[in-house]
Amino acid sequence: MIVSKTTYRITDYSTVRGDLLGNIEIGFETYGRLNSTADNAILVCHPFPATSHVAGRYAADDPLPGFWDALIGPCKALDTQKYFVIGVDSLCNLNVRDGRTPVNGPTMPTRTGTPIGASYPEVEIRDFVEVQRRVLDHLGVARLHAVAGPSMGSMQAFEWAVAYPERVGRVIAALPLASCDPYTTAMIARWVRPIDTAIEQGRTDPTSLHAALIDSFDILALDAQGRGDLDRRFADAPQACLDTLRAEASSRAAMSDALTFKRLANCIGRFSLGYGLKPSAAFDRYQAPTLLAPAETDELFPPYLAEATAAELQRRGRPVKTISIPGDGGHRDGSGLSVGRIATEVKAFVEAAL
Amino acid sequence: MIVSKTTYRITDYSTVRGDLLGNIEIGFETYGRLNSTADNAILVCHPFPATSHVAGRYAADDPLPGFWDALIGPCKALDTQKYFVIGVDSLCNLNVRDGRTPVNGPTMPTRTGTPIGASYPEVEIRDFVEVQRRVLDHLGVARLHAVAGPSMGSMQAFEWAVAYPERVGRVIAALPLASCDPYTTAMIARWVRPIDTAIEQGRTDPTSLHAALIDSFDILALDAQGRGDLDRRFADAPQACLDTLRAEASSRAAMSDALTFKRLANCIGRFSLGYGLKPSAAFDRYQAPTLLAPAETDELFPPYLAEATAAELQRRGRPVKTISIPGDGGHRDGSGLSVGRIATEVKAFVEAAL
Repeated sequence: MIVSKTTYRITDYSTVRGDLLGNIEIGFETYGRLNSTADNAILVCHPFPATSHVAGRYAADDPLPGFWDALIGPCKALDTQKYFVIGVDSLCNLNVRDGRTPVNGPTMPTRTGTPIGASYPEVEIRDFVEVQRRVLDHLGVARLHAVAGPSMGSMQAFEWAVAYPERVGRVIAALPLASCDPYTTAMIARWVRPIDTAIEQGRTDPTSLHAALIDSFDILALDAQGRGDLDRRFADAPQACLDTLRAEASSRAAMSDALTFKRLANCIGRFSLGYGLKPSAAFDRYQAPTLLAPAETDELFPPYLAEATAAELQRRGRPVKTISIPGDGGHRDGSGLSVGRIATEVKAFVEAAL
Repeated sequence: MIVSKTTYRITDYSTVRGDLLGNIEIGFETYGRLNSTADNAILVCHPFPATSHVAGRYAADDPLPGFWDALIGPCKALDTQKYFVIGVDSLCNLNVRDGRTPVNGPTMPTRTGTPIGASYPEVEIRDFVEVQRRVLDHLGVARLHAVAGPSMGSMQAFEWAVAYPERVGRVIAALPLASCDPYTTAMIARWVRPIDTAIEQGRTDPTSLHAALIDSFDILALDAQGRGDLDRRFADAPQACLDTLRAEASSRAAMSDALTFKRLANCIGRFSLGYGLKPSAAFDRYQAPTLLAPAETDELFPPYLAEATAAELQRRGRPVKTISIPGDGGHRDGSGLSVGRIATEVKAFVEAAL
């Protein structure tokens, strides 16, 4: 499946906190076609390190497809012969140097050409939903058959169900997290710490910030990495393990930017379902039947947090089903090839008459 | 139990790697009395952030006792009315500024009075054993009734059983790790990374290294911290959680030193049982009946690694018993009050006729 990214311009966007972002360009991708009754759209929200490139390849020789390609395409779990699948770039997207993702974050140029930097406002997961809503309106999608996504994508899916319950047919949340618990908040703060320390010490030159960014990706990588997978792949070669993690962190950092990382990480670190609402009031608004898919060895968003979310929904009589993504890859099992392990269950849930 | 630290001088110590450390001063503490047959000694090895202060208080108004006070004292699991309990400071001990621990590490002054710094040689867990052996010889202890300890202390206990099988009556290893798996190696490398980055960038002034050290303790703290415990204590107060972790990291750093942290962390990060031996050859030498006590919610040295060690010992016909330290405190449940939860099992194991 060869795909491409489209840019949509939103005029005078103001954040949910009330800061004017002005005219912004948002990248999105679509797969399949919207049907005549416009009721076959599925929004797939991306995780922290990804973009709207949820499936397919830009060119036949791309080494990797979009992050949920294992679930999306003709005859796959989200069958693009039946469904119109949409991905939208988040604000503050990390991939500011991939040559495809329109930039909305601290690297955005001001009128004078210098980056806006720390003057870029704090954005919230709800802002990602609001931006997606504008893109869906543009595409003629009033109601979603489903909203889905892993990790940070699950946050957006949950937020959709609370913000616009009448527009969400069902939710598929992989690596789900409905609100950050203190431990997760601390883990995410730990990702940002190298950048924070550099800034506190006045080391804000590009070289220093880039070194800090590599350290940040390095910390993140281990949190997302399954212990068993790493121990298996690098048995008796711990130095190769360190080198591999470091090389991954460096290549991530090469596509990204320290201030953007800090903003996006802080955004997810303070996520609490239903912007401005107390957690119980947020869950009271939630209507959509929901499939929760934690990864069984995930230590970043561990399965017991999914159980707590399931309990909140069940208490309110909402249909909820939980399936576990098997594997030893930890949080990473929620994307790439691994997530294909739950394709049958996802397909059944998406196609069920509810 | 009021205790005090004693200093023992070792002349011309050479490390197992062959570097001359020269004359060194080693702190140790003892509790109870060696009996006339000198067969009631128990060596308790300390974990990474601790010292030879394994039990009791230096003064009645000390806020906290030694790290295994819950297990050691009159009528406790390691009953000091029966046993002669010994703690010995590790080389490269972190607590270089606590005013009690004799310094052996990068902060040691050279003849000119400047710290030895990075010229301090790399030391190994086996060196800690060798230093302890000198202290035991000095105390007249030829054979240990038991060698025990949590976390880095378990490494020393295991190493004793391999280096001097004839001198070790039994092993009590809490938070046990017999060799670092790749994931643990990567976690420990992550602790050191802020210091490594500072050094790589030439930021080796005391202020910069101290800031890096706080970051290092911050990373370590979360790895050692049980998720459930943190989520329970800081429910709905994630910022207080961050502030508490940061304050702990700062107070740890105030007692410590960045280069010393780096050396000691690297030492445990490369630990492999039986210095210079292949793992299977090391386990072949191991004779002592062993009690393994992983903490059930430990994500740093998780219980499945203890199971692997138990399997290695069982395969060789060694008596081994595993009990789980219950709790939601993670790695931290291996010391402090929490470890008192296994006092009955430890007492039974220590007093059993084997």
